[in-house]
Amino acid sequence: MSIPEGGEFGLIGRIVSRLGSGPATILGPGDDAAIVRAPDGRVVASTDVLVDGRHFRRDWCGPEDIGHRAAAANLADIAAMGAVPTALLVALCVPPGVDTEWIESLADGLSAEAAVVGASVVGGDTSSSPTLTIAVTALGDLGGAAPVRRDGAQPGDILALSGRIGYAAAGLTVLSRGFRTPKKLVEAYRRPEIRYAAGPEAAALGATSMIDISDGLLQDLGHIASSSLVAIDIDPEAFDVPAQMRDAAKALGVDPYQWVLAGGDDHPLAATFPPEVSLPPEWQVIGTVHDGSGVTVDRKPWSGGLGWDHFR
Amino acid sequence: MSIPEGGEFGLIGRIVSRLGSGPATILGPGDDAAIVRAPDGRVVASTDVLVDGRHFRRDWCGPEDIGHRAAAANLADIAAMGAVPTALLVALCVPPGVDTEWIESLADGLSAEAAVVGASVVGGDTSSSPTLTIAVTALGDLGGAAPVRRDGAQPGDILALSGRIGYAAAGLTVLSRGFRTPKKLVEAYRRPEIRYAAGPEAAALGATSMIDISDGLLQDLGHIASSSLVAIDIDPEAFDVPAQMRDAAKALGVDPYQWVLAGGDDHPLAATFPPEVSLPPEWQVIGTVHDGSGVTVDRKPWSGGLGWDHFR
Repeated sequence: MSIPEGGEFGLIGRIVSRLGSGPATILGPGDDAAIVRAPDGRVVASTDVLVDGRHFRRDWCGPEDIGHRAAAANLADIAAMGAVPTALLVALCVPPGVDTEWIESLADGLSAEAAVVGASVVGGDTSSSPTLTIAVTALGDLGGAAPVRRDGAQPGDILALSGRIGYAAAGLTVLSRGFRTPKKLVEAYRRPEIRYAAGPEAAALGATSMIDISDGLLQDLGHIASSSLVAIDIDPEAFDVPAQMRDAAKALGVDPYQWVLAGGDDHPLAATFPPEVSLPPEWQVIGTVHDGSGVTVDRKPWSGGLGWDHFR
Repeated sequence: MSIPEGGEFGLIGRIVSRLGSGPATILGPGDDAAIVRAPDGRVVASTDVLVDGRHFRRDWCGPEDIGHRAAAANLADIAAMGAVPTALLVALCVPPGVDTEWIESLADGLSAEAAVVGASVVGGDTSSSPTLTIAVTALGDLGGAAPVRRDGAQPGDILALSGRIGYAAAGLTVLSRGFRTPKKLVEAYRRPEIRYAAGPEAAALGATSMIDISDGLLQDLGHIASSSLVAIDIDPEAFDVPAQMRDAAKALGVDPYQWVLAGGDDHPLAATFPPEVSLPPEWQVIGTVHDGSGVTVDRKPWSGGLGWDHFR
């Protein structure tokens, strides 16, 4: 079935029938608005938009993968404040010719990724459009904790990372060169694996600042440095560059640090902590905070690319 | 300045500098997520997307108007639950060639409409895209009240409307025929005037169901009828069809009831109340609720169009 046949309400009905309902949902899709529990008395909210051909390619990712990616990008932003995601709302613009099964699989991906953290899709809107576009808003709850912002890093803090870095960028390079393997890298691009619990965990460990690495490590750490009025230095020896990434980099003629330092889409969380913190093994110390400004690698400016800006 | 010159962060900075901050904002734009007060312990949330050429035309509406319309469509959904809007998040997709001044004016419109209810734009995302697209998520607070859903209408209830109806549809017809007057109708299409306070007011008056009329009165009341398992009958004599609308209808050869019963975009609130309710003058009784199903006009099915479905 193609979109116009069912009309908007038919399509919405088919999508809604596939969505689960999380514990925070008081009223899900079907009314003028959804109602979501916000027990903390504050709600954390973030919006990210994915545009076909710019943030994903339908020949590189299936609809379920794209649903996972769209949800993950937003859920990671909630985690990066130290909060637990509770709900997603999705605005979906669909061009003629995209069939209903494709959209249903997209909804399955969104719903499944939300379910990883106990959240669910509580509402949204659909429209026809020449450009397939997915705008997702995620909501979350701080559970009584203070939010971890970008502006609290202090000279003397250590910088740590929780989650994979460089994998998705490596997968993107592999796909863009026309390959489909190594599977681990390609799958990392198609469907990020994010340790959302790292967000509230970092808040509980006393993180002084935190950010979701979505555009590239150096670029995103630049936001912490500029917001906190500090300098950040990264230890290039601190990263485990796995054999598959090293081999792929060699085969493709790419510096793997390009993926690790400037690649996006993995959404690990980076946080700064007071130096006396005792970090669980899921957090890897990758740098230090100093007086000054900017982000350096081994005390030098990095000469490679600086992530990607969505408008370039 | 066109978009690519400033890059995404330059554009966001220019937008953010124009946004006010409402009393519910704890943390506005600039971090991974915003933080908004939710004193009720529940947050009301709704998403609507507007696509260029489908929900607005840049030659018919200026950017500030489009900002007002995009915000209004979402804020009305929050009001229709009986809640007070607190915040907006905006995902904005911009094609090359749209200049920064246009986007700044759009942001001004979004911000100004939010300010009408004391809300503000707390976050968002931007991307380049071939299609200008504005996806807005609105949040709101119930202030301790029970939400007014679509499924509570009871046989014997009266149906009342608060706000203008048919004006925007008349303005759209005027514009689509190449005219620019009557100004009152054209302006009603460009920038809806919504009595947002009607939402919490209806909740306090004991409304049994409520909906924002965005797609057309008959079509949207159909959602109340089907959700509540009741029939709704509309009194065609109950509407004040103002002289300007009557004159324009005559001049354009249109049945003005087409605008009143099937026209969208005015966003009045329609609610059902127990028959003993004493309604303030801002609420106009336009019909009654009965056993049965469907929506009739003067006890007969209406033979005109049935609003518009975004996919047709």
